[in-house]
Amino acid sequence: MSSLPSTHPLLDGRTADSALIRAYRGDRPATPPVWFMRQAGRSLPEYRSLREGVPMLDSCLDPAMASEITLQPVRRHGVDAGIFFSDIVIPLRLAGVGVEIVPGRGPVLDSPVRTAEDVKRLADLVLTDEALTPVSEGVATTVAQLGRTPLIGFAGAPFTLAAYLVEGGPSKEHMRARAMMHADPDAWRALMEWTADVTGRFLRAQLLAGASAGQLFDSWAGSLSPTDYASHVAWASHRALDAVRDLGTPLVHFGVGTGDILATMRDVGVDAVGVDWRTPLDEASRRLGGETVVQGNLDPALLAAPWSVIETAIDDIVRRGEAAPAHVFNLGHGVPPETDPAVLTRIVEYVHSLEGSVSQ
Amino acid sequence: MSSLPSTHPLLDGRTADSALIRAYRGDRPATPPVWFMRQAGRSLPEYRSLREGVPMLDSCLDPAMASEITLQPVRRHGVDAGIFFSDIVIPLRLAGVGVEIVPGRGPVLDSPVRTAEDVKRLADLVLTDEALTPVSEGVATTVAQLGRTPLIGFAGAPFTLAAYLVEGGPSKEHMRARAMMHADPDAWRALMEWTADVTGRFLRAQLLAGASAGQLFDSWAGSLSPTDYASHVAWASHRALDAVRDLGTPLVHFGVGTGDILATMRDVGVDAVGVDWRTPLDEASRRLGGETVVQGNLDPALLAAPWSVIETAIDDIVRRGEAAPAHVFNLGHGVPPETDPAVLTRIVEYVHSLEGSVSQ
Repeated sequence: MSSLPSTHPLLDGRTADSALIRAYRGDRPATPPVWFMRQAGRSLPEYRSLREGVPMLDSCLDPAMASEITLQPVRRHGVDAGIFFSDIVIPLRLAGVGVEIVPGRGPVLDSPVRTAEDVKRLADLVLTDEALTPVSEGVATTVAQLGRTPLIGFAGAPFTLAAYLVEGGPSKEHMRARAMMHADPDAWRALMEWTADVTGRFLRAQLLAGASAGQLFDSWAGSLSPTDYASHVAWASHRALDAVRDLGTPLVHFGVGTGDILATMRDVGVDAVGVDWRTPLDEASRRLGGETVVQGNLDPALLAAPWSVIETAIDDIVRRGEAAPAHVFNLGHGVPPETDPAVLTRIVEYVHSLEGSVSQ
Repeated sequence: MSSLPSTHPLLDGRTADSALIRAYRGDRPATPPVWFMRQAGRSLPEYRSLREGVPMLDSCLDPAMASEITLQPVRRHGVDAGIFFSDIVIPLRLAGVGVEIVPGRGPVLDSPVRTAEDVKRLADLVLTDEALTPVSEGVATTVAQLGRTPLIGFAGAPFTLAAYLVEGGPSKEHMRARAMMHADPDAWRALMEWTADVTGRFLRAQLLAGASAGQLFDSWAGSLSPTDYASHVAWASHRALDAVRDLGTPLVHFGVGTGDILATMRDVGVDAVGVDWRTPLDEASRRLGGETVVQGNLDPALLAAPWSVIETAIDDIVRRGEAAPAHVFNLGHGVPPETDPAVLTRIVEYVHSLEGSVSQ
C-alpha cells in the first residue's frame, strides 16, 4: 500500500486551520462548520446539465467530471467542505464486480453473492492502485482547486457494501445479508474481510491524493440489532479504517437509524459520529459519553418547510450540539433531489451567522 | 357508531382465559403466548394456492376467503391468536379512495393527496357501517371457527395511512408526508383527523364482530423524529383508538424502528407495545418504565438461520421479556414471504415448551 508522500496536503497544513478539521479534532470553532451529505448531485441544475447523457458510474470515474461535480456545491453554497463525488459501489466496480446503476432503482449487480462459493470467487478480485487512478486523479484535481477548503473522502462501510453484494441491489431490510451472517458465518466473515479491504483501499486512495478527512457511510447499519452490529459488522468497519489510520486524517462514521449503536460505531475508531434526524444531538452526545464530536442532524424533510420552521430547527440543533466537544452542522441524511438549492445556501449563511448567539 | 351487542364474544368470556388475552392484560401465563405478524400470507403454500388469480384487495373483501386465510396459520402452527387478514389500505378503499395493490410494489393511489384542496376532497369521503359489511362478516365467520382462540383486529395507524395518501404509494423515508406536517400544518391536521376516524371505524367493526383485541400498526412511525412523532402524530393515534376504548378489549401498538418513541406510542392509550428486533426487550421495558406489556421481537432474518441460532435467540428474548409485566412472543416484524413454514411451527412448539425453564 502506498505511504504518505512528502508533498501531501496534510503535511503542508493547508486545511489544518479550517473550521471543519478543527471541529473534527474537537477544537470548537466560533460557529459550527457546515456541509451537506449528498450536496453534490441532483438538487443542483448545474449538476443535472453536466450529467446529461452520462451514466452515473461513468461520471464518477471521469476525473474532470467528478471534480467539477464535487466543486459545484462548494462554489454555490459556501459550505465548509467538499465531499468527493462518487458512488458507494465504485470500489466494487473498480475491483471487477459487474455492477451498473439503474436510474430510479439504484445499483444492480450482474450476479448476487449468496453462497460460500460466490464469496470465494469474489475474494479473487483485487482492487489495485492502478484501477484507483481515476479516483486519485479526480481527488487531486479537486484539491488543487479547493485551496484551504478541506475535501472529505467518501467510502461505503463493509456491511452496506456486503448488503448490496448479497441482495444483488437495493433492498428494504437487507434480509438476505442479515440472514447470511447467521446461516453461514464463515462465508459472511470472508465477505466482510473482502469488502473491508476494498473500501479501505478506496478511501486510502482519496486521502493520499489530498482529501483532508474521510467519512465511512454505513447507510444500512440501522437495520441491524445492536448485538448483530457488534458481533458481525463492527470489526469489519474497524478493519476498513485500519487501512488509513497511519495517515492521521480525521475520520467520521455515519449511518441512518443508528441511534442505538452510536457508541459502537464510534468505537471502530473514528473522531466524529454522524447522527441522523431521529436522535437529538444532546441525547446522541449522552449516548457517546459526552466526549465525541457529533455531526448532523437537520431532518431533510424540513427543507420543504417555511424558513421560520427551518430556522427554529437549526437553533435547536446548534444548541443541542453544544453538549458535544464540537459539532459539524449537516443534515440527518442526504439532500433530497427535489430540494430548492437556495434553501441550502440560506442554511449555510444562517449557521455561519450564529456565533455565540444561540447558547446565550 | 354501533355499540356492543349483548351477544358480543367479549361479554361471553370466550377468550378471556386465553394466554394471549391474559398476557395483554398483564397477567403472566406460564409460557409466553405466541403469534407472528404476517403469519397469514405468502409463506404458506395453502395461502398461495387460495389466492391464485385473486387480486389482493379482493381477497381481503371476500369474507369467506379472508376468514380462511386468517385461519390457515392458526391450524398449521398452533399459534395463540389469529390476526384478521386484511391490508392497511382496505379502510381507504372502503371509504372510496381509488387505490390498488400493484404486485411487487405495494399500494398505489389513483391520485396522491398533497394540497389543502386534496385533503378537503378526501374529507368528504365517509366510511359507513354498510361499506364495512364484508369486514364484519369476515371477522364473524372467523371468530365462529376459532372457538376459544382469540382473534386480533388489524388496523393501520393514521400516520402510516397518511403517508400512503401523501406519497401516492410506498416510499422510502416518507419525505413528502413528513414535509407536509411542517409546510402545511393545518392540512396535515385535517388529513390526520380523517385517517384517524377512518381507521378507528375499521378497527371498531372488527372488534364488534368478535375480535378480542386490536393492534394498531404504525409501520412507518420510525421515520419520524421523537419531536415530530409527539407533536404531529401521536394525538391522531390516540384519536383513532378513542373509537374503540368503550369496548374494553386489549389494544397493542407496533411500529418498526421505533425504539426511541416506545413510551410515546404506549401513551396513546394501549395495553401492550410491540417492539421490533432492534431494541432488546429488557431495554424496551426499561424505556417503558417496567410497567407495560411487551410483544416481540425475534429478528425475521434469523428465520433463515440454523435452528440452534434460532433457539438461542428465543431463549434470550424470553429471558429479556421477563423484565416486563408480561410478554407476548412474536417476530420483530412480519414473516418474510420466503420463510419455511416448518420453522414457524417449531418456534411455536419451542416457546410453548419453555415453562419456567428459561429464567432458572
